[in-house]
Amino acid sequence: MTSPGWFPGRLLPLILSLAALTARADDLPSWNDGPAKRALVAFVERVTKDGGPDFVPPAKRIAVFDNDGTLWAEQPMYFQLAFAVDRVKALAPEHPEWRTKEPFASLLRGDLRSALSGGERAAAAILAATHAGMTTEQFEELVREWARTVRHPLLGRRYVDSVYQPMLELLQYLRANGFKTFIVSGGGVEFIRPWAEEAYGIPPEQVVGSAGREKYEIRHGEPVLVKLPVVDFVDDGEGKPLGIQRFIGRRPIAAFGNSDGDLEMLQWTVAGEGARFALLVHHTDADREWAYDRGSRVGRLDEALDVARAGGWTIVDMKKDWKMIFPPHRAARPGGHAPSEAQDVR
Amino acid sequence: MTSPGWFPGRLLPLILSLAALTARADDLPSWNDGPAKRALVAFVERVTKDGGPDFVPPAKRIAVFDNDGTLWAEQPMYFQLAFAVDRVKALAPEHPEWRTKEPFASLLRGDLRSALSGGERAAAAILAATHAGMTTEQFEELVREWARTVRHPLLGRRYVDSVYQPMLELLQYLRANGFKTFIVSGGGVEFIRPWAEEAYGIPPEQVVGSAGREKYEIRHGEPVLVKLPVVDFVDDGEGKPLGIQRFIGRRPIAAFGNSDGDLEMLQWTVAGEGARFALLVHHTDADREWAYDRGSRVGRLDEALDVARAGGWTIVDMKKDWKMIFPPHRAARPGGHAPSEAQDVR
Repeated sequence: MTSPGWFPGRLLPLILSLAALTARADDLPSWNDGPAKRALVAFVERVTKDGGPDFVPPAKRIAVFDNDGTLWAEQPMYFQLAFAVDRVKALAPEHPEWRTKEPFASLLRGDLRSALSGGERAAAAILAATHAGMTTEQFEELVREWARTVRHPLLGRRYVDSVYQPMLELLQYLRANGFKTFIVSGGGVEFIRPWAEEAYGIPPEQVVGSAGREKYEIRHGEPVLVKLPVVDFVDDGEGKPLGIQRFIGRRPIAAFGNSDGDLEMLQWTVAGEGARFALLVHHTDADREWAYDRGSRVGRLDEALDVARAGGWTIVDMKKDWKMIFPPHRAARPGGHAPSEAQDVR
Repeated sequence: MTSPGWFPGRLLPLILSLAALTARADDLPSWNDGPAKRALVAFVERVTKDGGPDFVPPAKRIAVFDNDGTLWAEQPMYFQLAFAVDRVKALAPEHPEWRTKEPFASLLRGDLRSALSGGERAAAAILAATHAGMTTEQFEELVREWARTVRHPLLGRRYVDSVYQPMLELLQYLRANGFKTFIVSGGGVEFIRPWAEEAYGIPPEQVVGSAGREKYEIRHGEPVLVKLPVVDFVDDGEGKPLGIQRFIGRRPIAAFGNSDGDLEMLQWTVAGEGARFALLVHHTDADREWAYDRGSRVGRLDEALDVARAGGWTIVDMKKDWKMIFPPHRAARPGGHAPSEAQDVR
């Protein structure tokens, strides 16, 4: 073999150009060749073209993704709510008072609509009652176990497998092009982190979300962090740019969402200088997933759809743009979904 | 040249082993060969030894660093306070009432001790008065300009050059070994981010710190984030593990501090399972920097020193362990420091 002394300098450029060739093959195989895919690829090529007018150095290639309805499904209710309902049921024997106390009474009767009629306050009560008092590590383990095992009743696949195959490809494509990918979710940050790395390749420190409050405590001689029954930060609407500023500290150049709760994040992203990209996932596929927008209780897409159209943002028409919805290699149990069953809670 | 088709698979391992050889040369040249350096290297070798009993996968190699007194100097006052004092002086002409209102009156007279006798409340008032109302981007530009230009009056070098050369080497050494390095500071996160990437190679999204609150607002038709006169989170003491959990979402395996405010962060770090590392920088060098610990007003090191000794943590004796303090290639103006001048504010 040739002496190794000469080669890193001479062969490395060749290795890199081979890697680039590989990247230039179709990285988005589940995307139909339509305007959404073309806009995505054109944007990535603009900001990564060294010496080009829109070049963005890798450190500034921040891409933020909403989670519910953008990276995974969100019908007939946010998956975190399904997790919380499971927790309420598990804890109910220790709380006989819940049989007459709202929102627990309705929830235990299976009447989600009434349970959530109290809005954010009801949701906070459920989260507080089911999460508070345990350590962050106990909570993490509960979520991890739930993610490992529990299936979506309509889709017949695990919740963590109810992620969008085209978005998995997009995350990977962006990372291969030097982007750092973040989740910026209205869901709880500690609910998402335990499974996001396996599901999306996104590590805990790149998840921004709504947050409760914790306290530092010594238990059995060891320091632990204990969850308190307090909602400290709601990462939705205006909260999303605020959360990004707090956690990430720089304005993203690309943002991906699907509902009005993502509007401010998308607007703040595109208002920055230089090349910017905003994309909305529009749920248009009642056969393979769900079709909903303006009237929906979960994932309502109204004002953001108008702003996106007026601003020329990229809108994914799930029915037309995506060859498949869910990852085929993550097995689904027979059954499939029946969108009509979901109507009553939207 | 040989066909390129065969070589990535065959030559890449060789390239990687050459890189490893390079890394094994002395990565910590400013550290004397004493117990601190040996403990650091032994820890890194344990957790990176593939197949070894203490191996930690790269994703979990989280290392957290206090900033003031650990990565850069902190005498005779936290550098952020120097920045705030400069801001008060610049804004004083618009605030005639400050001539009689504390803590501003004392501060404008140069009497820092009285100005800060109001404790955290006084500090918060100064921060609020000097930071609130501007957008996050305006504030960032102010900090960046300050970092570019303002010098430490005693050290004769810019504040951003008053960083510790041995710690710069340590950050780089850890990153070369697959660690992700974070700042976890009692200082303001938005004060540190604008210069941390250049000074330490730490990007904004890897800075955890104390934080004010912002609001989302449309100014001149563009969305901006405006700083409010509110302290939202104090990242000190018990706040440090809480901040790590909130921002990073996993327990570090290595933590570095220098004062009692870092104690809980260090304790929480070492209480995790598997190999763990805790290090205290002990300021023992009155000739080249400052010597202080138990009695100090700034950077008080009392309880943490006892806990570190009892627990067998690594303690850096700056005088003995460090060949140099500040980066020699970042020029200092003549003058140097006179530690005695600093006594009155400690």
